[in-house]
Amino acid sequence: MSGRRPLVGVLGGGQLARMLALSGHALGVRLRVVDPATDAPAREVADHVCADWSDPAIPARLADCDAVTYEFERVPVALAEAVARRVPVWPPVEALAVAQDRVHEKERFRALGLATPRFRAVDTLADLQRAVAELGLPAVLKTRREGYDGKGQRRLRELGELPAAFEALAPAPLVLEEHVAFDREVSVLAARGRDGAVELYPLVENRHEHGILIESRVPAPHASGALTERAHRAVRALLDSFGYVGVLALELFQVGEELLASELAPRVHNSGHATIEGAVASQFENHLRAVVGWPLGPAVATGPVVMLNAIGALPDARELLAIPGAHLHDYGKEPRPGRKVGHVTITAPDAGELEARAVRARSLVPVVHAGE
Amino acid sequence: MSGRRPLVGVLGGGQLARMLALSGHALGVRLRVVDPATDAPAREVADHVCADWSDPAIPARLADCDAVTYEFERVPVALAEAVARRVPVWPPVEALAVAQDRVHEKERFRALGLATPRFRAVDTLADLQRAVAELGLPAVLKTRREGYDGKGQRRLRELGELPAAFEALAPAPLVLEEHVAFDREVSVLAARGRDGAVELYPLVENRHEHGILIESRVPAPHASGALTERAHRAVRALLDSFGYVGVLALELFQVGEELLASELAPRVHNSGHATIEGAVASQFENHLRAVVGWPLGPAVATGPVVMLNAIGALPDARELLAIPGAHLHDYGKEPRPGRKVGHVTITAPDAGELEARAVRARSLVPVVHAGE
Repeated sequence: MSGRRPLVGVLGGGQLARMLALSGHALGVRLRVVDPATDAPAREVADHVCADWSDPAIPARLADCDAVTYEFERVPVALAEAVARRVPVWPPVEALAVAQDRVHEKERFRALGLATPRFRAVDTLADLQRAVAELGLPAVLKTRREGYDGKGQRRLRELGELPAAFEALAPAPLVLEEHVAFDREVSVLAARGRDGAVELYPLVENRHEHGILIESRVPAPHASGALTERAHRAVRALLDSFGYVGVLALELFQVGEELLASELAPRVHNSGHATIEGAVASQFENHLRAVVGWPLGPAVATGPVVMLNAIGALPDARELLAIPGAHLHDYGKEPRPGRKVGHVTITAPDAGELEARAVRARSLVPVVHAGE
Repeated sequence: MSGRRPLVGVLGGGQLARMLALSGHALGVRLRVVDPATDAPAREVADHVCADWSDPAIPARLADCDAVTYEFERVPVALAEAVARRVPVWPPVEALAVAQDRVHEKERFRALGLATPRFRAVDTLADLQRAVAELGLPAVLKTRREGYDGKGQRRLRELGELPAAFEALAPAPLVLEEHVAFDREVSVLAARGRDGAVELYPLVENRHEHGILIESRVPAPHASGALTERAHRAVRALLDSFGYVGVLALELFQVGEELLASELAPRVHNSGHATIEGAVASQFENHLRAVVGWPLGPAVATGPVVMLNAIGALPDARELLAIPGAHLHDYGKEPRPGRKVGHVTITAPDAGELEARAVRARSLVPVVHAGE
């Protein structure tokens, strides 16, 4: 690839592909995104192949790429495999397949010695009743596949709710997960290069509403060195188990000083957006550097940051940018309730000033959920 | 402009417009660049109006913009004025006109009480002989207009060189400038908003070769607080004198603790590229925020940085990116000798590590001058 600019194909043309492309323009890495939407957010900054996921021509349209990656984990595995027969696909398709099934995902965590919430696969109402007897209530019934941003789940509090919850989600394969009374949700991102080198980003504290990420703080406040070390060991074990290349995000529940692995995302991740301003090399830059086979950049933090998702609407730029250290990221999307249309990162010289700025920013960054 | 994304027209579609556009995509500011080159570097990330500078349709093509700016100072003043009759043009056309004439530029500096090298306007060989008698030799004879990157100049060491130097540059209006035995070249960048608020970037130390910027260090090493304060007062006086909106760069010679104003650039500037990684809000972001009427971001440094221009060729990405804290900026241009095709910014946690990394980077970043 030396001597000319690498071309990377991306399955998916949303805001993650858009931010990958913005990184790529600086690095000299060109992107070609595949997305069925004519108004895909990445279209303004990358070549756009507008194609339905079932289009059999997609692998041929990516055949001249140096590598292909993806920006959402519902990419059909068969498509990723078909592309991989022509061009290297990173992260490995196995990571994609595991991430698409909540049972396989947790089995992988357990195989690596990572604690997880207790869970049971559920295919029938009888399975569900048996699982509830074993795990107790409250618990959460989820589809094994296709769930994201809080969709495809039912919280179970009483035995009487079981049949209706099962009916609502069946006949898809389901999983029952114990309710975890966590202290907080955290995530850890890491990048692994083609040479096996790993860069570990600081632990992130996440706050969700209606299953959607609202706010991330990096580094996670009051995280002990031992806790961060445990998260880093966990994500490194996952990376190595897949022979991974690219950025991977691992979401965890913190209970006291324990961490329970919850989900993995084999891609750049919303809880890593603050790495644009808050790390020497952002998740977007390192993902591209990994997939084209270049050395990774330092994941080390440059200072504390707060990231706020703009849901359903963007903040007023004039008001927001009056806050020193407020960084606006507009995804170029049409606003509608429940839709992530942008994010704001707040930087500050110290923790006290960061908190003061974050308080002002929270009052300006809209969070408008669907159905409100 | 609230409620929808501002559209900014840019006269010029080079790497400065490209980096403005990359900033704009995050901020939600759309760019439309005008450039006669079909392969203008900004074309990949912005709307591109491919038009010759003499094309009378340009103002109409920009009529729906919220504001128009420019990225090089050889924009014809008549064109800027024609555009300004339809759409606000920032920085003010007066600043463009003054920057285009080395005599007017220095007269402006003097009117504001800023010291400059001594100079004389030269229209005839007799003028030149009289000017040399007054200023002494060595001295530099330059065209008043159209000079950039060391072009359009002759260094004069002996009286016998005068006729040939005059012949080489005439009949264009000329200026003779005294030779300044400076300790170093520095520059200072600042942004001024539509509300008159000013953000001052740290003093920059610059190193040129063959008249082309090779390296910048920010903040300028060993700059006293008083020196930086003097540079900041100078650039602020210039901004206010023009009722300026946008980013302005002022180049100066440092002689002991004195500063002599050399040139102004009414635009984002090569010596400000390190603000992408080295300041809270980059020159590109602040220029856009200024011209659309949004509040400016802090120009405060986030740490010491070194910026190296890649001239004539790009460094090998694999080798360069093996240096921690090396940030590659590829302008997407075809390499040829003397052409700025990219730059590299080096960040580091401390000054010692920065120097070690910069030494490695210098050995990898090509500097291939024209005619070598």
